[in-house]
Amino acid sequence: MVKDDPSFPPSFPEGGPLAHYRAQASFNWKTMALLLDKEEILRFKYEIWNFLATDPIFAYSPTKRSLHDERRVIMQQTFRIMEKDFLNETKGEIGDPVKVMAMTTALGQYSWSLCTKRSIFMDFFTNAVRGLAKSGYHFDILEKAYKMELTGCVAMTEIGHGTNTKAFRTKATYDTVKGVFILETPDFEAAKCWSGGLGKSTTHAFVMAQLYTPDGQCHGLHGFVVPIRDPLTFLTYPGVTIFDMGEKVGLNGLDNGVMLFDNYAIKRESLLNKTGSVSGDGIYISPFKDPNKRFGAALGNTSAARAAIITMCAANLASAVTISIRYSAVRRQFSATNASEELPVIEYQMQQWRLFPYLAAAYVIKFVGDSIYQDFVNFIMSSFNTDIDPELISNWGIEIHVLSSSGKPIGGWLARDAIQESREACGGHGYLRSAGIGVLRDDHDANVTYEGDNNVLLQQTSNWLLTIYSNPHRSELIDKMPMGTLSFLRIESVFHNLKFTGEMTPQSLLSSYKWLVYYLLQTTAEKVATQQTNGSDSFTSKNQSQVYFARTLAIAFIEHYCLDVFWNKLVQHQDAEIRTVLTKLMLLYGYWSLEKHLGTLYQGGHCNGDDGNVIREGILKLCEQLKPEAIALVDAIAPPDFVLNSALGNSDGEVYKHLRSAMMMTPRGFERDDYWKDIVEVMTMKGKL
Amino acid sequence: MVKDDPSFPPSFPEGGPLAHYRAQASFNWKTMALLLDKEEILRFKYEIWNFLATDPIFAYSPTKRSLHDERRVIMQQTFRIMEKDFLNETKGEIGDPVKVMAMTTALGQYSWSLCTKRSIFMDFFTNAVRGLAKSGYHFDILEKAYKMELTGCVAMTEIGHGTNTKAFRTKATYDTVKGVFILETPDFEAAKCWSGGLGKSTTHAFVMAQLYTPDGQCHGLHGFVVPIRDPLTFLTYPGVTIFDMGEKVGLNGLDNGVMLFDNYAIKRESLLNKTGSVSGDGIYISPFKDPNKRFGAALGNTSAARAAIITMCAANLASAVTISIRYSAVRRQFSATNASEELPVIEYQMQQWRLFPYLAAAYVIKFVGDSIYQDFVNFIMSSFNTDIDPELISNWGIEIHVLSSSGKPIGGWLARDAIQESREACGGHGYLRSAGIGVLRDDHDANVTYEGDNNVLLQQTSNWLLTIYSNPHRSELIDKMPMGTLSFLRIESVFHNLKFTGEMTPQSLLSSYKWLVYYLLQTTAEKVATQQTNGSDSFTSKNQSQVYFARTLAIAFIEHYCLDVFWNKLVQHQDAEIRTVLTKLMLLYGYWSLEKHLGTLYQGGHCNGDDGNVIREGILKLCEQLKPEAIALVDAIAPPDFVLNSALGNSDGEVYKHLRSAMMMTPRGFERDDYWKDIVEVMTMKGKL
Repeated sequence: MVKDDPSFPPSFPEGGPLAHYRAQASFNWKTMALLLDKEEILRFKYEIWNFLATDPIFAYSPTKRSLHDERRVIMQQTFRIMEKDFLNETKGEIGDPVKVMAMTTALGQYSWSLCTKRSIFMDFFTNAVRGLAKSGYHFDILEKAYKMELTGCVAMTEIGHGTNTKAFRTKATYDTVKGVFILETPDFEAAKCWSGGLGKSTTHAFVMAQLYTPDGQCHGLHGFVVPIRDPLTFLTYPGVTIFDMGEKVGLNGLDNGVMLFDNYAIKRESLLNKTGSVSGDGIYISPFKDPNKRFGAALGNTSAARAAIITMCAANLASAVTISIRYSAVRRQFSATNASEELPVIEYQMQQWRLFPYLAAAYVIKFVGDSIYQDFVNFIMSSFNTDIDPELISNWGIEIHVLSSSGKPIGGWLARDAIQESREACGGHGYLRSAGIGVLRDDHDANVTYEGDNNVLLQQTSNWLLTIYSNPHRSELIDKMPMGTLSFLRIESVFHNLKFTGEMTPQSLLSSYKWLVYYLLQTTAEKVATQQTNGSDSFTSKNQSQVYFARTLAIAFIEHYCLDVFWNKLVQHQDAEIRTVLTKLMLLYGYWSLEKHLGTLYQGGHCNGDDGNVIREGILKLCEQLKPEAIALVDAIAPPDFVLNSALGNSDGEVYKHLRSAMMMTPRGFERDDYWKDIVEVMTMKGKL
Repeated sequence: MVKDDPSFPPSFPEGGPLAHYRAQASFNWKTMALLLDKEEILRFKYEIWNFLATDPIFAYSPTKRSLHDERRVIMQQTFRIMEKDFLNETKGEIGDPVKVMAMTTALGQYSWSLCTKRSIFMDFFTNAVRGLAKSGYHFDILEKAYKMELTGCVAMTEIGHGTNTKAFRTKATYDTVKGVFILETPDFEAAKCWSGGLGKSTTHAFVMAQLYTPDGQCHGLHGFVVPIRDPLTFLTYPGVTIFDMGEKVGLNGLDNGVMLFDNYAIKRESLLNKTGSVSGDGIYISPFKDPNKRFGAALGNTSAARAAIITMCAANLASAVTISIRYSAVRRQFSATNASEELPVIEYQMQQWRLFPYLAAAYVIKFVGDSIYQDFVNFIMSSFNTDIDPELISNWGIEIHVLSSSGKPIGGWLARDAIQESREACGGHGYLRSAGIGVLRDDHDANVTYEGDNNVLLQQTSNWLLTIYSNPHRSELIDKMPMGTLSFLRIESVFHNLKFTGEMTPQSLLSSYKWLVYYLLQTTAEKVATQQTNGSDSFTSKNQSQVYFARTLAIAFIEHYCLDVFWNKLVQHQDAEIRTVLTKLMLLYGYWSLEKHLGTLYQGGHCNGDDGNVIREGILKLCEQLKPEAIALVDAIAPPDFVLNSALGNSDGEVYKHLRSAMMMTPRGFERDDYWKDIVEVMTMKGKL
C-alpha cells in the first residue's frame, strides 16, 4: 500500500519476520513520522541518535552498572553531549524550545539519567535563578552557569516536606551586623534532599528557604544562590554537610543529594530579590502586597517541567509499545487444530486489547504533550509582550497550569501501565534485562511522583473546575479563558440529558465525554456542598470529595481535552489514509478510556441497557482494524534500534537472534562461577551440610 | 482496647510515632497473627527469621550487588540455610507441607532468590523426577539429590515455547544399536531456557523432550534425567552447551540458564518411564491408551506451584502494605487552616482508598492461599488412598487446578498493584532503594508470568466453567465436585433477576457476586455460541470471547470464591472483635473488587439508579472505619523489621531516623567522586567543552 518512499527517515531493511505485517499498513509510516515531528525536528533527533550510536562511550552495558560506575559513566556521557553542544547552549545561545524538548526526548529514550544530568547543568539551575534574578551578582552567576564555569543544582524538597512546599523549614536569617544571611537546617527533617546533581557534582545550589529578618519575623519562602563546594578542590564549605541519597529504583546515573546547613553565612546578594529583598539594616521590602502572589511568583512557573514530562511520557509509551508490539508480531504460540503454523500472538484478540490501546495512547499523548508544550512556549513569549492584557496572560497561565497538572498524571499513569502491560505481554523474555522494559519501568516510575504527586496534582485541575463552576458569572469566566478549555460548558444544558447513541464516532465520543465531565462537575460540587452543609471546613470538604468525584472529574476533563486536541489536529491533515488511521487511534484510546467510566455513565443515565456491550464490542473491533496497521504505527514512533536497545523490539524482527546475542554477552556467562568448588565440596564431602 | 498480651509473637517497643494509631485498634493484633498462622507455624517462621537476622552472611547490601556477587552471595546463603536444615530435608525426611510453605514465605519475604534457590536444590528437581520415576536408577538419582550428592534443575521451557508446552522441540531419539537416547536441539529456538540453577550450579537436569523411536515416530513429551556437568570438575559434558541467561528484572540471585544438545547420548535408563518406555529394540510401550492422558500425566501436577504462588503473593501484599501504611501513619503533609500540626497522610480519604483495599486483599489472599494449598495437600494425600473413588479424586484434581489457575492470576495482580500503589503512595522516598519497594516489585514481577501467564491461565478456569455450564447434566456434574466450588449454580434461577438491595453485608456481597458470575457465564456462553454459529472453529470462538467475557468470568468466579472462603472461615472465629474487623476487611476487598465490575452490574440490571454511588460511598466508609485498625492489622501480617528491610516500614515508626541511617550507609556517600576533577577541569579550562 506504500505509495512513495521518501529518503527520510531511513527505511528498514527489507524482509525479515516483521515484513508480513509491515506490508499490510494502509498508510506510509514515514509520512506519519513526519506528521508527528516536523522534518527539521526529526532530523535533529536523528542527528543526536546517530551521534550516540557511533561513539563507544555510549555503548550499553549487558549488566546493570554499580551505582558508582553508573554515576561516572553518565557524567562522562554528559560531558560528551555538552562538548558536542547540539544547541550551542554552552555558547550562551537560547535554543528553539521545540528543539530543546526534542533533545530531551531523544536523549531520554536512550537514558533518562543522561537526559536529566544534562538538564541539571544546562537548564534547571539557570531557569530557577533566572526567574528570580535581579542584581548584577545574579546575572554574573547565570553567565558563569551557562558557560559551565560553575555548576548548580536546585534544592527545594526537604526530607519532611515535598508536596506541601509552603512548609519547607530551612531558615535564612539576616544578620545586620555582618550583613549576611545565616542558613540553618533546624533538624534532619528539614534537610534539603532529592536535589539532582547535589550529591557529587555541583558547586552552587539554588536554595529555597524561609526568610527571617532580625526582628524574628518570617517573610516566607525565598530563593538564594548558595555556594556549596569550593570550585577548585570540590570540598564542601565548612557549615555545609552534603551526602549522597544512595541508590534509587531508577535514574541511578543521577547523584541526588542531601544537604544540611549549620550556621552557614552567605552574602546578602545571595538572595534572589525579585520578589522581596532585605535592606542593609534588616528591613524587608517586597513589590508584592499579597503574600500569596509573592509565594506563587517565588515558586516560579512549574508548568514547564510538567508540560515537558507529558512529552517524556509519550516517549516512554512509544518505547514500550514498540517492544511489545514488534515482539507480538514475531512470537508465535498455539494454533487452531490442524493448522500448519502457530499464530503470531498479535493475532489474538487478548493481545491486541492488552497492547493496542497503549499504542493509541502513545499517539494521543504525543500530540497533546507537544500541543501543551507549544501552548506553554507561546504563553511565555506572550508574557514578555507588554501590549498583551495582563489578565489574559494570567488566565492563560492558569489554563496551562490546569492542563499540565492533569496532563502529567494521565500521561505518567498511561506510560506506567503501558510499560507493565508490555512487560507481561512479552512473557518470560520480557523479564530479561535485555528486553529493555525493566530499565524503562524503573526510570519512568519517577514521573508519577516528581514535579507533583499525580493524585495531589489532579486537585489543581479539579479545584479550578469547581471554582469556575460555582462562580455565578461562570459564562463570562469561561469566555475569558484564551485557550477555550472549558468553552463547551457554555452550552451545558445540551449535556444534561444526553444519551449514548450507539454510534461510535469522534463526535459521539466527544459528546459522551462532555456529558461525563459535566456530570462529574455537578456531582462533585454537590458532594463538596453537602460536606460543608454538614459542618466540614473547606479543607476537609475537599479532601472528602476526592475519591470517585474530584479525582475522576480531573481525569475525565483531561481525557476529553486530549481527545479534543487530537481530533482538531487530525482533521486538518491532507492525507486521507493518515486521517483514517488516526481516527481509529482516537476512537480506540477514547472509548477504551471511556469504558473505565462505564459505571458512572450508567449511573448518570448516559448509558442504558446494552450500551456497555456496544462500547466494548466497538473497542474490540477497533483493535482488529488496527492489527494490520500496528507495525507501521510502531515504526513511525519508534526510536532507532540502538536507542531502543531491546532484544525483543528490534526493527528487523529477528527476536531470537538478538536474544541469543544478548544472552551470550553475559559476563562470564559460559564459565564456571567461583562457587562451583563449594558445590563440589558439598556434593563430595557430606560433612559440610 | 488490647485486653491481654500473650508473650508470642514478640511485642513492639512502646511509644514512638506509631503508638497513637497502634493503640486505637479494637482487637489484639497478636490474636490476629495467631489466627493467620497456627502458633507452631508462626514460631517456625520466627525461628527462620531470627536465624537470618543474627548471621552476618544475611546482612543486606546498601546498593544492589553486581550480578556476579548476587549469585555468589545467594549461593552461600542457600548453603547456610541447607546446613541449618530447618526441616531435616537433607536427611531425607519429608516435612509437613504446611511447614514447607511457611519456610517458603519466611525465606521469600527476606529474599525470593534465596527462597527459590533452596527450592531448586531441595524441591523442584526431585518433585519432577519423583512424579515420573519408575526404575531403580531413577530412585538412586532421587536419593542422591535429596542428600545433595548431586544437584538438579528442571529444563522445560524453550526459547520459542513457554505457554504452549506441547510444542517443545527438543528431541530424544532412541538408538537401538548403542542402546541410548540421542538428545538434539534442532535450533536455538528449541534451546532450553529459564531453567533456574542450570546456568551455574547443577550437575543434572530433568529435561522434557519429544521422544522419537528409530522408526521416526514421535511419541510426545517425556521426561529424562540428564547428566549435564561432571560432578567433580563442574565442566559441561561434550555435546552439552550451557550459558547463563544474563541479568533479569529481578531474582538475580538465580542462575537461569540456556542449554543446547548436540548429538548428546544418554543411557536408556535416563527416560523417566512411568508414562511410557522404549524397549531395547526400539518399540514404544505406554500404560496410557489416550495420548492426551499421557501428556497430562507427563507434565505432572503443576497445581502445587501455583497454589504456593498464591501464598507467596499474599506475603508480598503484606510486605507492601506494611511499608506504605506504616509510613502513611508517620508522614505528615498539609493541614486545615489554623491547625497547629500537619495531618498524617493516613487521615486523607485518598490515601486510605489507595492502600486499605490492598490491606484487605492481603488478608483475604492469605486466607485463601492457605486454604487452597491445604486443599491441594489433602487432595494429594487422598490420591494415594486406593479406597477413594478415582472419579472423585479426578474431579477434586480438576477443582484444585481450576482454583489455582485463577487464584494465582488474581493474587499476582493484586500484589503487583499493591506494590505499585505503595511505591507511589510513599512519594519520592518510596523511590529510594532503602524503602524496599523496588526490590519487591522486581522480584514479584515474575509471579504474573511463570507457572503460566496470568491471562492464559485464566482460560483454564473459564473453559471449565463453560464446559460445565453447557453440559445438559450440569446439576449432576456440579454435585460431583467434592469441593463444591460451583454448587451455588444449582439454584441459578434465584440469581436471574437478583437486584442489589442497597445493603452492604457479607450475604448481599456474596449474592451480588453470584449474580455476576452467573451473568458472565451466560453471556460468555452466548458469545462463544454466536461465534460458532458464524462459522468460527472452537479455537477461534474461544479466543474471540476472552476480553470482557471469559477473562472477566474467571476473575469474578475466583473473587467470589475468595470471599466465600474468607466468610466461611471468619464466622467460625470465637473472638467477636476479630470477627468484626475481618468482616470489614471482607466487605472492603469485596465491594472494592465488585466496583470494578460496575458497568456490567448496571448493564445486566443488577444495579440501577444510584446504586453505584451507594457502593462507592460504602467503600469510603469502610476505609474510614478501618483507619483506627490499620496499624494493628499491618502489625499482625508484617514480617520482622530485619526481614522487611524498609526504612519507611519499620515497626518503631522512626521513619526519618531509618532514612538517615540508610542514606548515610551509601558507599563513599560523603566523599568526592572520582569525576570531581573532570568537573573542575571543565570549569577552569574552558577548552574541554
